Amino acid sequence: MNSFSFQNPTKIVFGQGTVGQLANLVAPFGKTVLVVYGGGSIKRSGLYDQVIAQLNSIGAKVVELSGIEPNPRLTSVNKGIELCRSEKVDLILAVGGGSVIDAAKAIAAGTKYEGDVWDFMMHKAEIKDALPIGTILTLSATGSEMNGNAVISNWETKQKRAFGSLHVYPRFSILDPTLTYTVPRDQTVNGVVDIMSHVFEQYFTLTENAPLQERLCESVLLTVIENAEKALENPNDYEARANLMLCGTMALNGGLISVGTQNDWASHGIEHEISAIYDIPHGAGLSIVFPNWMKHVYKERIDRFTQYAERVWGIERGTKSDEELALAGIEATREFFTRIGAPSTLAYYDIDSEHLDVMSREAVLFGPLGNFKKLHQEDVRQILENAL
Amino acid sequence: MNSFSFQNPTKIVFGQGTVGQLANLVAPFGKTVLVVYGGGSIKRSGLYDQVIAQLNSIGAKVVELSGIEPNPRLTSVNKGIELCRSEKVDLILAVGGGSVIDAAKAIAAGTKYEGDVWDFMMHKAEIKDALPIGTILTLSATGSEMNGNAVISNWETKQKRAFGSLHVYPRFSILDPTLTYTVPRDQTVNGVVDIMSHVFEQYFTLTENAPLQERLCESVLLTVIENAEKALENPNDYEARANLMLCGTMALNGGLISVGTQNDWASHGIEHEISAIYDIPHGAGLSIVFPNWMKHVYKERIDRFTQYAERVWGIERGTKSDEELALAGIEATREFFTRIGAPSTLAYYDIDSEHLDVMSREAVLFGPLGNFKKLHQEDVRQILENAL
Repeated sequence: MNSFSFQNPTKIVFGQGTVGQLANLVAPFGKTVLVVYGGGSIKRSGLYDQVIAQLNSIGAKVVELSGIEPNPRLTSVNKGIELCRSEKVDLILAVGGGSVIDAAKAIAAGTKYEGDVWDFMMHKAEIKDALPIGTILTLSATGSEMNGNAVISNWETKQKRAFGSLHVYPRFSILDPTLTYTVPRDQTVNGVVDIMSHVFEQYFTLTENAPLQERLCESVLLTVIENAEKALENPNDYEARANLMLCGTMALNGGLISVGTQNDWASHGIEHEISAIYDIPHGAGLSIVFPNWMKHVYKERIDRFTQYAERVWGIERGTKSDEELALAGIEATREFFTRIGAPSTLAYYDIDSEHLDVMSREAVLFGPLGNFKKLHQEDVRQILENAL
Repeated sequence: MNSFSFQNPTKIVFGQGTVGQLANLVAPFGKTVLVVYGGGSIKRSGLYDQVIAQLNSIGAKVVELSGIEPNPRLTSVNKGIELCRSEKVDLILAVGGGSVIDAAKAIAAGTKYEGDVWDFMMHKAEIKDALPIGTILTLSATGSEMNGNAVISNWETKQKRAFGSLHVYPRFSILDPTLTYTVPRDQTVNGVVDIMSHVFEQYFTLTENAPLQERLCESVLLTVIENAEKALENPNDYEARANLMLCGTMALNGGLISVGTQNDWASHGIEHEISAIYDIPHGAGLSIVFPNWMKHVYKERIDRFTQYAERVWGIERGTKSDEELALAGIEATREFFTRIGAPSTLAYYDIDSEHLDVMSREAVLFGPLGNFKKLHQEDVRQILENAL
């Protein structure tokens, strides 16, 4: 285990009906609230009306920014920053999934920064301050509701970049599993893949002697696998939705389940390059990339992959070699993704080899990707080719 | 899964040499620091000198309160409160194990309260404010370094009582596994039992449909069991000490591993009555109480105990009945405690039946104990009798 420091100040308020606590949660932060959301789904579901009623009940002034994209764009972030400044916003309330929350984080940090907010994504500046953020989560996926990370797309430069800071951890996040009942099937699937992928990025590590962290990761994976199909079969299964929601948060709540270990994050880097150009859903991109990443890297530490096969997929070793067992675990991953309806090839989105060069070059812009195996441009290209 | 809210703002700084970060961690809180510690062990180990050097390096004024007892006493807490007021202390720095940290929490809350600090333990007042606390942990056990709980003994009234508040979560905790190298064998053992007991109090629940929480609990138990004997055989085994330390923190970091489930805490209540009268180590008392509590309650939800036997102790069901499997898990617990040298009977401390009446009466002072099975006075007496 390596040395580490860990802090996660976000308060989560979890359960059916917890939106009713919004007024009390918002009140300490001030009177002017920027409500950030995506399309019309929160209006159709009635959540929007609930939120406004809660804010009205404490006499809050409501400012709105809607239309946040599934891969949230810098243009939307800049609109939000302008609103926060002109309206003197006290609190940003993100109502939605990871994209909306990520946009809120960029807006919160950008408002307190004199330069271009894109500087944070390009590692040109460090976040020193941010407006407070609250969230109401409507999709189990990114964990953005309980961490300080965000990913923003710059459509002009075709770049999708991440940043992170303790300053943009939400002050509170309302997690009501019933809000996810109406999430469409494909988005539920993408969320499941996203949660599992976040665990993969932490679980596949070269760090030795972290048995608790390994088990915490496996706990999340097992519980997601156990509940995904239940939620897909019966979208109103409260327990399945609640378990997925808690798994999504635990999978990436500031790195708690992998403290003291080196994370990888190469697959996310590769996926970001795909969706920067093709604007496909993040979870779908990960479903395509991850099994191919696994096959490219598993020999670096085969015992981690055999443990994965045995503990997560319950595959018995029997007479299998390490290699066979590791590959069986990777194959089980791919089969599970396929069974729940997640794509396995770039061809699913009519993506061909045209942009493989630019994607693999951009992926390593700041140096080799990942840690389990350092991926150079040719590795990334190979993984993408195998994903065609 | 039940609804819940969760927040844990403590920053943990984990790893060998992290005491070197103390000066930077203390600086934001002010200039006057009350250093709270127990006996001479931190002077013998050199930790005391390190702490003072760090504090001197930022020009801090150091006030000291030493001699905190293993079951920290109200008299020591009151001394600390006086010091904080007279010296206008800005930060309380607890250097030690759970007892020292618990005393610091009571001092922190009591300083900001005009009435008698014992009011908090008797549920007569609620904590509204507290001085900030930092900790340097020297013993893996209570989790007090990352939660808002404390237990204080009132030697005059022979009462041992707990309190909890978000206000007394440490602002930072330094966790250096090498500081536990010199912990005596029996205290290491008691710490192991304490950690496991904290998980038991959360794991044995009637709450249904909390599969992630169950697995998180099992993860901690498996990792403690795997590392306890390694640490006992080789006290300087960094990885074993680090794993135990992380397990201690995770076992009770504000209830993260059991969010949305009803906890029990009856065994802690019973143990507190024993050590309130006989002043035995908390972990030793738990080692005596817990297997007897298990045998008294397991029929309330036998599937939880069969799962425990299978997943934690790896006991195969074979032809065993539920009853046999559950009892095998309980027996495995008792055997493990015995194997590492933890006591299993009150007779070990020459405790006879003399005070069983008063202990069982005091245990239910605020009503029946626990939730897995509601324990009335006669249940508590029965468990204690079985423990003789």
